[in-house]
Amino acid sequence: MPHRPSPEDERLWAELGLDVELHARILESISANFERQVESRSGRPDGMAYFDGVIHGSHGARVREVMTRKKEGAKFVGTFCVYVPEEILIALGTVHLALCGGTAASIPYAEGKFPRNMCPLVKSTLGLALSGTCPYGPLEDLAVGETTCDAKKKTWDVLGREGGFHVLELPQKKGPADRALWLEEVREFARRIEDLNGAKLEEERLRGAVRLMNRKRRALARMHELRKAERPSLSGTDALVVMQVALIDDPERFTGRLESLNGELAARVETGIGALPEGRRRIMIAGCPSVLGFWKIHHLVETVGGIVVVDESCTGTRYFKGLVDETADGLEGLIEAVADRYMTIDCSCFSPNTERMESAVRTAGDYRVDGVVQSILHACHTYNVEAIAMADALKAAGIPSIKIETDYSEEDVGPLQIRIEAFMESLEFRRGD
Amino acid sequence: MPHRPSPEDERLWAELGLDVELHARILESISANFERQVESRSGRPDGMAYFDGVIHGSHGARVREVMTRKKEGAKFVGTFCVYVPEEILIALGTVHLALCGGTAASIPYAEGKFPRNMCPLVKSTLGLALSGTCPYGPLEDLAVGETTCDAKKKTWDVLGREGGFHVLELPQKKGPADRALWLEEVREFARRIEDLNGAKLEEERLRGAVRLMNRKRRALARMHELRKAERPSLSGTDALVVMQVALIDDPERFTGRLESLNGELAARVETGIGALPEGRRRIMIAGCPSVLGFWKIHHLVETVGGIVVVDESCTGTRYFKGLVDETADGLEGLIEAVADRYMTIDCSCFSPNTERMESAVRTAGDYRVDGVVQSILHACHTYNVEAIAMADALKAAGIPSIKIETDYSEEDVGPLQIRIEAFMESLEFRRGD
Repeated sequence: MPHRPSPEDERLWAELGLDVELHARILESISANFERQVESRSGRPDGMAYFDGVIHGSHGARVREVMTRKKEGAKFVGTFCVYVPEEILIALGTVHLALCGGTAASIPYAEGKFPRNMCPLVKSTLGLALSGTCPYGPLEDLAVGETTCDAKKKTWDVLGREGGFHVLELPQKKGPADRALWLEEVREFARRIEDLNGAKLEEERLRGAVRLMNRKRRALARMHELRKAERPSLSGTDALVVMQVALIDDPERFTGRLESLNGELAARVETGIGALPEGRRRIMIAGCPSVLGFWKIHHLVETVGGIVVVDESCTGTRYFKGLVDETADGLEGLIEAVADRYMTIDCSCFSPNTERMESAVRTAGDYRVDGVVQSILHACHTYNVEAIAMADALKAAGIPSIKIETDYSEEDVGPLQIRIEAFMESLEFRRGD
Repeated sequence: MPHRPSPEDERLWAELGLDVELHARILESISANFERQVESRSGRPDGMAYFDGVIHGSHGARVREVMTRKKEGAKFVGTFCVYVPEEILIALGTVHLALCGGTAASIPYAEGKFPRNMCPLVKSTLGLALSGTCPYGPLEDLAVGETTCDAKKKTWDVLGREGGFHVLELPQKKGPADRALWLEEVREFARRIEDLNGAKLEEERLRGAVRLMNRKRRALARMHELRKAERPSLSGTDALVVMQVALIDDPERFTGRLESLNGELAARVETGIGALPEGRRRIMIAGCPSVLGFWKIHHLVETVGGIVVVDESCTGTRYFKGLVDETADGLEGLIEAVADRYMTIDCSCFSPNTERMESAVRTAGDYRVDGVVQSILHACHTYNVEAIAMADALKAAGIPSIKIETDYSEEDVGPLQIRIEAFMESLEFRRGD
C-alpha cells in the first residue's frame, strides 16, 4: 500500500477494471494511517518488515499472486468472517482471503444504497465493492458470507442476488440441534467448494489442511504467550498487524514467517528488549474486530501510556483459540472435527454467550491486564448490548473496563484520547492504592 | 388508558409495586396520542368501541383479569414476537400477551443501561420494565424472547440472567436442517410450558387451541378481505388498533368481538359507508410492526389523503397468514403442524427472504394499492437493509414506494408529513397520466 502507486500497480488495477484514481485515493488514506499509527513507531522487531510488506502489497503483490494461482487453475474465494472453515478451502486447493474493509474512505460509496446507520466494517467492505476499488472483487469465484449479525446477513441477501455467493448459517444457541445444524452447514459448504473446484474432498488432503491450520494457530498462540511477558517485546499495534495479515496471507508462508518472528520476540524477551517503554498499563481490547485499515484504538491506547497485551476479538484470540482434532477418523470424522472447532468460537451472535465472559475474564487474568477497553463499532448491536454483561463479569473479577463506541473516521480521536487517557490514569491510581 | 387514572387503578399499580406517578405520566402520553390520532376521528364503526376499551384497559382491566386468572391457578407468560406458538400456551391454560412497548415516554429509562442506538420497540419495552411501569412485569411467571434480531437476542441475554426467561431460537434459513431445528425448539418450548404448569400437553386440548387460533386468524383475514373494498369501511388506523388488541386480548373474546365488527363492516360496505372520504390513495404499510402506542405513520398517511388498506408487518398480515392443519394426526402431528405454520412467517430474520418480496407484491396487487410506505424503525438493520430488495421488487411490479426511518417520538412528524404528502401527490400524478 505505497503512498504513490507504482505504474505496475496502476496497470494491474486498470486491467481489473477498477476505478484507478479513486482506488489510489483510498489507498493513500489507508497508507497515511498505517505510516502514522504503525510504521513510524520505534523499537519494532525486524521480523515485522515481512508483515508490513503484506499490508503494503495487499492491493498489489497479493493480488498478482491470486491471479497467478487462478491462472494455474485455482479458484479464489473471498470471506468475511472467522467462522469460514478454512481447512476445507485449503484441502481443495482454493485460494482464499478475508475481504473485510477497515477504511472510512470507502464508506460514502456504500451509503448511497445501504443504510448509514450500520457498522463501519460492513459499510467499508460494501463501499470498496460498490465503488470498484476492491481488486479482489473481479477475481472472485465465490464469496462466502455468514449470518453472524443482522447487518451482514441482510447485506448478503442483496449481494447474493447476483449469484456467486454462499451464506453459511451460524446457529444462535449451542444446544444439540444447533450443533446438528452447523455440521450440516459445514457439509453443505464442503459440497459447494467441491462443486466450485470440480473435485472431491479427500481425507489425507483435509488432514494436511487441518495440520497446517493447527500449525498456524499454534504459531499465533505462541506469539500471544510471548505477549504475557512482564515487558512484552511486541506492541499491541504490531500484534494487530500480524493478526490482520493472518486473514489475508498465504497460510503456509504466513506461518513460517510468524514462527521466525516468534524466535526474535523470544530472544528480545530474554534480553529484556521491550516494544514500548517500561511501566505501561497492560490493556486487553475486547469486542469487535479491528480489520486491516483500523489501528486507531490500539494506537491511542499505546500513545497514552498503555500496551495492548491481548485482543479478545476476531482479530485476536477468537481467530486461533482451539485446535481441530488431527487424529479424527476418516473424512467424515475430520469434517465433524472441523465443525466442532468452529462451533467453540464465542462470538456475540450466540445467546446466551456466558462462555465468552468466562473466557474473557480468564484471559484478562492470564495476561495480567490492568484494564479492558471494550471496542464497539458503531451500530454493532450484538457486541454493544453484550458489553453490559462483559462489564459486569469483569467488574465481578475486579478488572476495570471502559466501553467505547467508535467507527473508522478520525473525527472522534480527540474525545477518545481524553477518555482512554483518563481510564489509564484511573488504573494508575488503583495500583497506587 | 384514561387520562386521569382512577383511584382503583392507582391502588392496583401500587399493589403491583409500580412507580405510580411515573406510570400515570407515561400512560397520559400514550392516551394523548390515542385520543388525537385514533379516537377523535369521525366515521368510526360502532364496533370499534370494544377495541378502544381494551386499549384503555390495557394497564387496568386487563391487568386485573390476568390477576384473577392467576388466582384461579393459571400461569402468566409475556411474549415479544408473533413466532411464539400461542396454541401451546392456550392448550396448557396459560394466560399470555405481548409486552412490546410502543411509547417514547419509557425510552429514557432504557437508555441509562442499554445502547441508545437500538430500535425504539426494544428500548420502549425495556424502559417500561426497568422503570417499574409495566404492570405485567410483576405478574410474569415466564417471559419468552426469541432470536429474530440482534437487539432482541442480546437483550434477552441480559434480562435472562435473572431467570424466568425462555429464548426461542428462530433459524435464519429455511432448509431441512432449519426446519428440524425449529421443530426441536417448539418441542422444547412445549416442555418448558408443561413444566411451568405442572401438566402435560394433551392432544384434544391442543387441537382445541389450534381451532381457536385458526378461528381468530380467519376473523382477521375476513376483516382484511373487507379492507379490499373500493371504499373500505374501516380506516387503516382502526385496523391497526384491532391488530394491536389481537396481541394482548383474550383470544376467544377477541375473536367473537371481531366477528361482530366484521358483520358491521360488511354491512357498511354494502350500504356504501366508508371510513374515510372517497378518492383516497390506497396505501400498504410494509416493514416493522406498529405496536400499541404507535399510530403515527398510519395517522399521517390518513391525514394527507391516503387510506391504509393493508399492513405487511407483524401487526398486519404476518400475524394471521396461514393456518395450522387442524386435522394433523396425534399430539406429535399437531405439534409438527404448529411448527410448520410458524415457519412460514416471512420475517426479515431469514436469509434470503425472497418469499417476503413475492408475497408483498402479491398482497399489494390483491388490495389494489397505489403505493407502499416502508415503515422502518430506527436501527432495525434487518428491515432497513431488506428495504432495498423490497423497493426493487415493488418497482419491478410497477408499484411506487418510499422508505421512512422513524421512531416513537413526535419530533419528526413535520418532515415526515411533508415526505408522505409529496409521495401521495406523486401517486395522484401517476394516476393522471
